[in-house]
Amino acid sequence: MAKKADIGLVGLAVMGENLVLNMESKGFTVAVYNRTVEKVDNFVNGRGAGKNFIGCKSIDELIENVAAPRKIMLMVKAGKPVDDFIDMIAPKLEKGDILIDGGNSHFPDTVRRTRKLEEMGLRYIGTGVSGGEEGALLGPSMMPGGSTTAWPEVKPIFQAICAKVEDGSPCCEWVGADGAGHFVKMVHNGIEYGDMEMICEAYNMMKNVLGMSAAEMHEVFKEWNAGELDSYLIEITQAILKTVDPETGKPVVDVILDTAGQKGTGKWTSESALDLGAPAPTIAEAVFARCLSAIKEERVAASKVLTGPAINFTGDKKEFIEDIRKALYASKICSYAQGYQLMKLAAKEYNWDLNYGEIALMWRGGCIIRARFLGDIKKAFDKNPALANLLMDDFFKKVIDDCQASWRKVVAQAALSGVPVPAFSSALNYYDAYRSEVLPANLLQAQRDYFGAHTYERVDRARGEFFHTAWTEHSGNTTSTTYIA
Amino acid sequence: MAKKADIGLVGLAVMGENLVLNMESKGFTVAVYNRTVEKVDNFVNGRGAGKNFIGCKSIDELIENVAAPRKIMLMVKAGKPVDDFIDMIAPKLEKGDILIDGGNSHFPDTVRRTRKLEEMGLRYIGTGVSGGEEGALLGPSMMPGGSTTAWPEVKPIFQAICAKVEDGSPCCEWVGADGAGHFVKMVHNGIEYGDMEMICEAYNMMKNVLGMSAAEMHEVFKEWNAGELDSYLIEITQAILKTVDPETGKPVVDVILDTAGQKGTGKWTSESALDLGAPAPTIAEAVFARCLSAIKEERVAASKVLTGPAINFTGDKKEFIEDIRKALYASKICSYAQGYQLMKLAAKEYNWDLNYGEIALMWRGGCIIRARFLGDIKKAFDKNPALANLLMDDFFKKVIDDCQASWRKVVAQAALSGVPVPAFSSALNYYDAYRSEVLPANLLQAQRDYFGAHTYERVDRARGEFFHTAWTEHSGNTTSTTYIA
Repeated sequence: MAKKADIGLVGLAVMGENLVLNMESKGFTVAVYNRTVEKVDNFVNGRGAGKNFIGCKSIDELIENVAAPRKIMLMVKAGKPVDDFIDMIAPKLEKGDILIDGGNSHFPDTVRRTRKLEEMGLRYIGTGVSGGEEGALLGPSMMPGGSTTAWPEVKPIFQAICAKVEDGSPCCEWVGADGAGHFVKMVHNGIEYGDMEMICEAYNMMKNVLGMSAAEMHEVFKEWNAGELDSYLIEITQAILKTVDPETGKPVVDVILDTAGQKGTGKWTSESALDLGAPAPTIAEAVFARCLSAIKEERVAASKVLTGPAINFTGDKKEFIEDIRKALYASKICSYAQGYQLMKLAAKEYNWDLNYGEIALMWRGGCIIRARFLGDIKKAFDKNPALANLLMDDFFKKVIDDCQASWRKVVAQAALSGVPVPAFSSALNYYDAYRSEVLPANLLQAQRDYFGAHTYERVDRARGEFFHTAWTEHSGNTTSTTYIA
Repeated sequence: MAKKADIGLVGLAVMGENLVLNMESKGFTVAVYNRTVEKVDNFVNGRGAGKNFIGCKSIDELIENVAAPRKIMLMVKAGKPVDDFIDMIAPKLEKGDILIDGGNSHFPDTVRRTRKLEEMGLRYIGTGVSGGEEGALLGPSMMPGGSTTAWPEVKPIFQAICAKVEDGSPCCEWVGADGAGHFVKMVHNGIEYGDMEMICEAYNMMKNVLGMSAAEMHEVFKEWNAGELDSYLIEITQAILKTVDPETGKPVVDVILDTAGQKGTGKWTSESALDLGAPAPTIAEAVFARCLSAIKEERVAASKVLTGPAINFTGDKKEFIEDIRKALYASKICSYAQGYQLMKLAAKEYNWDLNYGEIALMWRGGCIIRARFLGDIKKAFDKNPALANLLMDDFFKKVIDDCQASWRKVVAQAALSGVPVPAFSSALNYYDAYRSEVLPANLLQAQRDYFGAHTYERVDRARGEFFHTAWTEHSGNTTSTTYIA
């Protein structure tokens, strides 16, 4: 009998194909199955020709060809297809077998599926996989969570195929129970939304306030990528800005329509932040910025009617470019601080034991947000695993101290120039609110007590004691604890 | 046999009590029931003594005492209690009877319940009720939706008890099918979050940048309330600021702790906006501002470590107060514009035929956000029911033109002074993005095409045609339509 496969895969779309080619290149034998079975032959005789793949034409054949305890990975569209395949495959598995979902599932689904599979005596892993097609082939960032005992079984495969940082550390570690892996992947994507929006704001300021061309901005981003901002997204931005459209001879970026989609994981991240009461305004602003980009026709109509200030920049251009770089860097720190704060609250809510330094390491390579900067985040959490907020780390505090005058100048200049910088602004407001010993919520509490008898706490009493003022002659002493106006 | 009641009520908490006292005062007889039945006697012999109330000790007794087709209103806590009472009451009702939920239910629950009750041959109304206790007693704003045929049955009661505007128009109209009423109430509350936050930001700027006392700010808000900003929330703010704490002799506002709760309808509004792709950043920022206020201990610790600029205001104080007023007014317009945009998208998604002018009228009186300004919104939609955005109305365009220099000055000054104004800033960024013919999302689309082959549209081609650039020598021509990195 032929050697059985180390792992099985369902779903030969581009991500699935690249992932198994990656696995095979590291010495693993992979059994592959696809619902449209012609794809199996196409793959085994095409990109997989002469390699250690076992083409399977049915779920039964797939199961038969994977060594026990079986590891079967789904690379199918998130949502119903995942449940459908689970329903098809799980009843045919044996105790201890492991089903792995490598798609972009929403973490509550992964929580539910882990519970369901464990009740069947099986094991389940939901893993974030980031890095796009190229990452899948050459080394993605992987964020697995689920049935804890399944980790040692898949670890050799996952850590062989994943990206590595300079010192060889794998960008894949066990994240935590049930939905933890997909949660962390979701936050990664929310942060990615923020990073992309902030790069766009830097670009927009250079373009509209300083009147720079794509070629000039290419030089700036190239320089930035050699410094503190060194990251995949800055790297591709400089590459994009120098790319010319063969049809028109213009920079490609200047012929691309300015409408972006959302409805993905950035939205989930913001919703999760709202649910958990985690302040993540910068990520939410990035999602809303995409919504605004999508209503192009409305904007074109509005641009003809609504007025703004004339842009009249009189300062030093080179200096202002450096101000923009600092605004981007400081805003980025705040956005990551928000993402980490969200993970902390989620860990508490969902009973996950998250290792924040390891998460930074997982994001250090392979994924879209990979950046030198994540090494500094890892250091911050290695130094103090209980760090309340990234902003409180010495290194980041120093960076912000160095950047903040520039950051404030850019946000002020944008407001005066009529150029939208929602992420830069919200990051700055987050910073200023976070460092505020006193916020104006005392007035807000007074308002709530006034119209709804919601009560308030006092600065001169212990927390947990609630007071009510009889604000008007009509207002009684009945307080409200259930009615929310 | 005694006269039957015009309507029955379940739930004699303060809102329920006040609402039935209001009904009775308008000539209606009300049968009342409460789960803890002592409350029924307490009420009938207490606040309800000598009035047309029928105290009922059981659901059966309640049903028996209400004239057919029965109208039975629940004023119980949102969530499970509503479902529990429905399950108890609905099976005992007769075809055509009407169950009404007057609590703060989440609109998807109301959609579900309407469907369920209609399948049972009954009718269902979910109605927003705003105005707090005093509103319930003297005239709330009411936003009913649900089974359309039920409206003529309850209209005489609802329009008798609701608030009226100066010309006598009732602040209660039929909103639309199933969850429309609770949706509109939810948006009302989201807007309320925004209004409260923006007032707090105005207060915070006066307090921290201008160093003003509560008494001085009382004078300012009092003056504002006599002008364009005339509204309930400004009215109570000026009243709050002059109220003295009897214990310390200080202004009450200065002894109230600056921590506010959220998790309510502001959160729902923001989540709904994210779901529908409606840009509502100002409302979301208001929710996140409450989250930041809640982590007082972290802020106190951060205030000792994180630095900010020295505040050094050298301008004309009186002039800057007027700038703040204009910043508040312009921001408020943007926040309402976002709320209305959200309702427009919801109407499309959920098949509601919303009348935006009527909604402004419902909010014109009785509720927490009642304001002179809502009359102007009504006029805008009366003039053009298909208005794409409030900002595009002549009146509001003129206001923004008048306010924007001041608004920009305040946002810039706040950024330079280190005083957080997340709602003012996000409103300004919303305005500047909405009037941008070109946003930097072209770069974002290039990034998405670069790392995920997501394709883009071109400025020189029709919408709906998608293009992909082979950005690197490795990158192929395969585009991705399902995988989201």
